Amino acid sequence: MKINRRKRAIQFTGIGLVALATIAAATVPAVADEKSDQSRKGSAQNVILLVGDGMGDFELSAARNYSVGAAGRLKLDALPERSTVTTYSVQESDPSAPNYVPDSAATSTAWSTGVKTSNGRIGTTAGTDEDIPTTMELAKEAGLLIGNVSTARITDATPAGAMAHVAKRGCEGPVQTSASCAADAVENGGPGSIAEQSINLGVDVLLGGGADRYDQTIAGGPYAGKTVTDSAKDRGYSVLRNAADLSTAKQLPALGLFGGGHLPTELVGPQAAPGGVAATCTPNPAFTADVPTLEAMTRSAIGLLSSAESASKQGENGKEDRNEDNRDERKAAGFFLQVEGASIDKQDHAANPCAQIGETIAFDRAVQVALDFAKKDGNTTVIVTADHSHTSQIIPATDKDSLGATATLTTADGQPMKLSYGTSPTAGSQDHTGSTVPYLSYGPANVRVPSLLDHTDIFGIVNKALGLS
Amino acid sequence: MKINRRKRAIQFTGIGLVALATIAAATVPAVADEKSDQSRKGSAQNVILLVGDGMGDFELSAARNYSVGAAGRLKLDALPERSTVTTYSVQESDPSAPNYVPDSAATSTAWSTGVKTSNGRIGTTAGTDEDIPTTMELAKEAGLLIGNVSTARITDATPAGAMAHVAKRGCEGPVQTSASCAADAVENGGPGSIAEQSINLGVDVLLGGGADRYDQTIAGGPYAGKTVTDSAKDRGYSVLRNAADLSTAKQLPALGLFGGGHLPTELVGPQAAPGGVAATCTPNPAFTADVPTLEAMTRSAIGLLSSAESASKQGENGKEDRNEDNRDERKAAGFFLQVEGASIDKQDHAANPCAQIGETIAFDRAVQVALDFAKKDGNTTVIVTADHSHTSQIIPATDKDSLGATATLTTADGQPMKLSYGTSPTAGSQDHTGSTVPYLSYGPANVRVPSLLDHTDIFGIVNKALGLS
Repeated sequence: MKINRRKRAIQFTGIGLVALATIAAATVPAVADEKSDQSRKGSAQNVILLVGDGMGDFELSAARNYSVGAAGRLKLDALPERSTVTTYSVQESDPSAPNYVPDSAATSTAWSTGVKTSNGRIGTTAGTDEDIPTTMELAKEAGLLIGNVSTARITDATPAGAMAHVAKRGCEGPVQTSASCAADAVENGGPGSIAEQSINLGVDVLLGGGADRYDQTIAGGPYAGKTVTDSAKDRGYSVLRNAADLSTAKQLPALGLFGGGHLPTELVGPQAAPGGVAATCTPNPAFTADVPTLEAMTRSAIGLLSSAESASKQGENGKEDRNEDNRDERKAAGFFLQVEGASIDKQDHAANPCAQIGETIAFDRAVQVALDFAKKDGNTTVIVTADHSHTSQIIPATDKDSLGATATLTTADGQPMKLSYGTSPTAGSQDHTGSTVPYLSYGPANVRVPSLLDHTDIFGIVNKALGLS
Repeated sequence: MKINRRKRAIQFTGIGLVALATIAAATVPAVADEKSDQSRKGSAQNVILLVGDGMGDFELSAARNYSVGAAGRLKLDALPERSTVTTYSVQESDPSAPNYVPDSAATSTAWSTGVKTSNGRIGTTAGTDEDIPTTMELAKEAGLLIGNVSTARITDATPAGAMAHVAKRGCEGPVQTSASCAADAVENGGPGSIAEQSINLGVDVLLGGGADRYDQTIAGGPYAGKTVTDSAKDRGYSVLRNAADLSTAKQLPALGLFGGGHLPTELVGPQAAPGGVAATCTPNPAFTADVPTLEAMTRSAIGLLSSAESASKQGENGKEDRNEDNRDERKAAGFFLQVEGASIDKQDHAANPCAQIGETIAFDRAVQVALDFAKKDGNTTVIVTADHSHTSQIIPATDKDSLGATATLTTADGQPMKLSYGTSPTAGSQDHTGSTVPYLSYGPANVRVPSLLDHTDIFGIVNKALGLS
């Protein structure tokens, strides 16, 4: 494992200083929960961080109306602690200056490292291209198990920010890295593509799409001439290719690649259009039984990580040891899992309300899996957030002059809901937007957080819960 | 005072039942704050409810970036408890069916009465036009002082929903009521216009615009032939006409009418336009020294209500009595104040980012006044929320193909922030939207609330804090 390929030289100036101050504030909350008295002494053993990509309040409101009605509740609405999160990134040419509309690379880097970077960067500093240690790396170093799950390519920006360091988010496989991130390429002495780095780090569970990236051939170093997938097998990884493989997986490390690119969405329907369309959402034929749901991937990842955790504890101690004061052993046996619902964002870009809402509902089911585990386990913190807000807006059903492309869906209430997409022409890609996004949490030490957080604060909150700080 | 002009017959079916259930959930929070131990036995004496009209997370994010920078904090960000609120209204033709994009009349009615109604209605039921008691009326009946402050006409929908009952929000003065709300008109045996009802109820402090409505002539009943303003004077009201009057006001009841219609915005600038404009925000020349700021109106209202409260307590007891267990006297001396920042919404409708942001900042200053009082007083709860989300979005500064009208402002960071308005053509009125909106609170019994509320829940939360339930 080679975390810092270059001298770490993060400049805590300007925005950096503010970010650091807000981390400190968040990790020492002024107010703690009555309920948490009994578990306040120890840190939580496990953390599951679930990220809805592009899941702002509009996307959640649309999914709520559609799936359970305006007075209904999503699964994630049950998480008791709420805050809201500023998402801005910084500028490559001047890292002290904010960029009000971030991308997933910069935001994932922010919560994974505590440091803001510029759009497109993965785990590296704006302007200076230095690697910044991530929670997943710190957890691995401390002996915790780590997992990364996404409905996108598992090398896509949001999962990548948790486990890799490249100058450009596109450098997902060896081919792209040779072409676009020469300094990162293994043949030039670099740490390799995002796919290579995920295996080098030894992420214990990797589940998602992106087989096309892992099946590329490594161009240098000890695995030269092999695919990333084969190099993973050499290092003990089970490679899973479909839902059946996943359901029978029993051991770590596991690399599940369930599609060449991003996984298909669960629902499909018409794209919003100028003047409006009536949209009926239907199951996606491409979402076959071979493709695991995000819910299934989350359940399997938790199962594999928590079973291994138990095995590890039994192995170390001869018997299970849940002594609260035995901090070193608890640290060694916990896990950190990141789960991304990726295509809320991708379908918002595409102005496709059915697919966007279907992926929000799919993400919500994964939250329920995490919450069920945490409640049963008693020692797991669940955090739900988003990387940035997006384009979709709920406008009056009677609206006739929206400048955006619109689509009208019939909700669980049996009523029309009109969504508008207006940040780009329908033929283009709708834009990310710059609002704060939701933050929700549940945990045994249900630590209260300030009512406004920044993404960089999540780094401190997660590390503290894992016992890393 | 004539609250129920007709038999109260609220139908608790469909959505009504759900709303009632969520009120129950909200008024018996599962988790309370450690800090609140000492004050948990008694209810808070005073409640200040501040409503940013149209103030969704986008509007707050834009105001934050503009005024204090992306890493800065608004005054309202300091309120420790956060939730988010569903805002939907119901349909006039079928009150069991939601309308996903509400107006201010329906939402103000919802938090003021605990019952959802249809867009355009003030304190009356959808379909059946029955009056529904409001918190302000219940507070008055219990002997508390009540106040209502807005930068709009004080008869506009948001303040109106707290204190009046008419079938149509436009029935603000006697003339409109005769024309459009015949059943409500005094000459037909009704309770009169919103302006008349505000005086009949005896709202102790009324501050805002709307002199044009109050200066209309009453067409029936005991004050026939007089203006509403003169009828108020007959009943002991001091009438204030400018900031100087306000600053020297010493007694209740007080009717402050600081403009004929809505009060002017603090900032002005260019309207967003297709293809984009560069917007520099400047002070509004119409916002003269005669016009009080929302901050000044809030400070005066609190001053008048809290001084009268002290006088009342001293009068009743011979000396000040703050015995925590003396509940009846505490109830008799408390106050409920609603404060609206109205033109965040009105300038979002107008696609005018400078005025919209200026009014958000002005609202934020009023929140600080309420928070400062509550911290000093030790027995006041402050709640900040919004009635509905709106159109404005922060999009990438580099965007070139937004379908909406756009404007680029230079923020406190010295960086460009681009806002887009795309729910209607620029020449029209931009639409309300249907996202959840922020909820923030501070109080001596800083009661935790579920992470998702409905507007109707606020009715229960406020009444409980006032000791009315």
